[in-house]
Amino acid sequence: MAVPTPDPFQLSCPVPLDIHTTVQMAHGGGGRLMRGLIERMLLPAFAARGGEAAGAGAAAERVAAREPPHDSAVVEAGGVRLAFTTDSFVVSPLFFPGGDIGKLAVCGTVNDLAMAGAKPAWLSCALILEEGLPLETLGRIVDSMRRAAEQAGVRIVTGDTKVVDHGKGDGVFINTAGIGLVPAGVDVSPRRVVPGDAVLVSGDLGRHGIAILSVREGLHFEGTPESDCAPLAGMVEMLTARLGPQVHCLRDLTRGGLAAALNEIALDAQVGIRLEEEAVAVSERVAGACELLGLDPLYVANEGRMLAIVPAVVAGEALAILRAHPLAREAAIVGEVTAAHPGTVELRGRLGGGRIVDLLSGEQMPRIC
Amino acid sequence: MAVPTPDPFQLSCPVPLDIHTTVQMAHGGGGRLMRGLIERMLLPAFAARGGEAAGAGAAAERVAAREPPHDSAVVEAGGVRLAFTTDSFVVSPLFFPGGDIGKLAVCGTVNDLAMAGAKPAWLSCALILEEGLPLETLGRIVDSMRRAAEQAGVRIVTGDTKVVDHGKGDGVFINTAGIGLVPAGVDVSPRRVVPGDAVLVSGDLGRHGIAILSVREGLHFEGTPESDCAPLAGMVEMLTARLGPQVHCLRDLTRGGLAAALNEIALDAQVGIRLEEEAVAVSERVAGACELLGLDPLYVANEGRMLAIVPAVVAGEALAILRAHPLAREAAIVGEVTAAHPGTVELRGRLGGGRIVDLLSGEQMPRIC
Repeated sequence: MAVPTPDPFQLSCPVPLDIHTTVQMAHGGGGRLMRGLIERMLLPAFAARGGEAAGAGAAAERVAAREPPHDSAVVEAGGVRLAFTTDSFVVSPLFFPGGDIGKLAVCGTVNDLAMAGAKPAWLSCALILEEGLPLETLGRIVDSMRRAAEQAGVRIVTGDTKVVDHGKGDGVFINTAGIGLVPAGVDVSPRRVVPGDAVLVSGDLGRHGIAILSVREGLHFEGTPESDCAPLAGMVEMLTARLGPQVHCLRDLTRGGLAAALNEIALDAQVGIRLEEEAVAVSERVAGACELLGLDPLYVANEGRMLAIVPAVVAGEALAILRAHPLAREAAIVGEVTAAHPGTVELRGRLGGGRIVDLLSGEQMPRIC
Repeated sequence: MAVPTPDPFQLSCPVPLDIHTTVQMAHGGGGRLMRGLIERMLLPAFAARGGEAAGAGAAAERVAAREPPHDSAVVEAGGVRLAFTTDSFVVSPLFFPGGDIGKLAVCGTVNDLAMAGAKPAWLSCALILEEGLPLETLGRIVDSMRRAAEQAGVRIVTGDTKVVDHGKGDGVFINTAGIGLVPAGVDVSPRRVVPGDAVLVSGDLGRHGIAILSVREGLHFEGTPESDCAPLAGMVEMLTARLGPQVHCLRDLTRGGLAAALNEIALDAQVGIRLEEEAVAVSERVAGACELLGLDPLYVANEGRMLAIVPAVVAGEALAILRAHPLAREAAIVGEVTAAHPGTVELRGRLGGGRIVDLLSGEQMPRIC
């Protein structure tokens, strides 16, 4: 087996933090290390193919070549635009206030499809089970997936089951991949974000990360917040049905929270983003827990919150559409896209001062999804 | 969190081997225990939904409701038939003679799509990395995936990366899901298998399982066989292009080998299958290793072999098509479908005696894919 050994991780200045020879927890954290791994190892291997995809045609080539990395790929088959995405879930613990790994696995993939403007249709479910897992636990998780799929209006149509030796897994890992249909006229992508656009967020921040942390660390806050884990496809469908191509970009606020999502968009679209601290909602419970733990709620993961970027002229209408949805009653316009300082996100404080909201190297909390 | 606790595994006579309250290695082995888990826990939860899938329409409902469990689901979108499948790969060790987990992850999903008669088009790649994995190892695996995708003519268009703590994974687990396009006129499914059909196998059996075992157990046979790991989409395309709807059923011979594949088809189609021992090819090296290890090559996993079931009248033509393909030079007609003893597979020996080839409870060797 004379497999050629490529340089797996081309080291380049000026990012000295990336000098690792082994996988770190932070490589999965949604921050700079993960972005580096994806951009320098995975994308060059998978995107730069010369050959034409079987049956995919030029449209798929074009899409894959020009698009910045995204929650879903969009490919074309016989005139139909399909969104295609995958996510593995390794959350620990398996059950937490407001949800479990099963609900998370369905909502997470439904949301990735929705963030491409697609109507989620079909999901796959691949289980990696650790030997010794109680079948009763698995039954609860599977039942939770069933209910979440019902709520989100998707079907789980195919699956796979693998078992690994005790001590080589962690209870259950779940992968869900998904296919959604992108309606005609919808074109959601970071490259469509332009200065002057408004940034909306669908609700308060940080519930999921704090809910996980509270169970994991055995912390008991006064009234632990529940995870916000929920399917976002319904509100996206309402937005795109009314605003069509005016929905420029959508992003769910998972690993790395609002801060990571905005930084990625600022980098991919080469724009600046100014965030108004006052407009960002954080519940008292989450704010209190964050203060106690030294966490910044802008970076804490959510599983039922998204941002939407639309032209300023329709921001009010977008806000009204979101607020009419039961999962986005507290939606708000939280900032604007600017031409100044491309690639950076600035937080304007209540008293007018500003600070840069940077992309973290890793994640404040590992294994939250 | 008052999650209702369903009976996760309805116990039923007369299968006392199924009485387990925790996950066993054999639940992932491709045998009776796995079939029980899928039929009694997973399918009831996922297939029996009342609601209509968003955007999927009646066709998908019909397909999901009537089809026996299959390598891929086939769904319809805007008049296009899509095959959709998922597979997680947990093979140990990560590298073995003739391949590695990366090549396996691409070929496995390409083959599952091909077994639905589809032309594989797009793959996803979701990595679960164990903290501490050398990035150089990951780089070799990713490069292997790239080359396998090139060979199979598919594009990896979307991905995901998660990291778990050291000791909570095993180096790398890879999930690949895939989408393929089913050509008009092609209708491949176990329910199309009828008495009188011929059974073809595309080559000799057992290479993959023996290759894995030889490395894992540190055994050094004289000339360890290489894994047969390879994409089968090319030969399927040749078969369906020439024989169209006369290709009744295809199945790759992975976990549980030819024995498991034939038993599943016999059960799903409610037919008998008679296999001619003489016609089944096993290389001398594999036969020797099996004898030494007490394994039956009919049950050993392959990753580049398939069976095809076609009407007897076109069996000769199918054989010629297969033998013209570089990966199926040793293809053979190995048996026939009968009306006698529905649900059972019989092996006719060289001297005329017969024995039942049963579905094993688990798998002779765990974690071979």
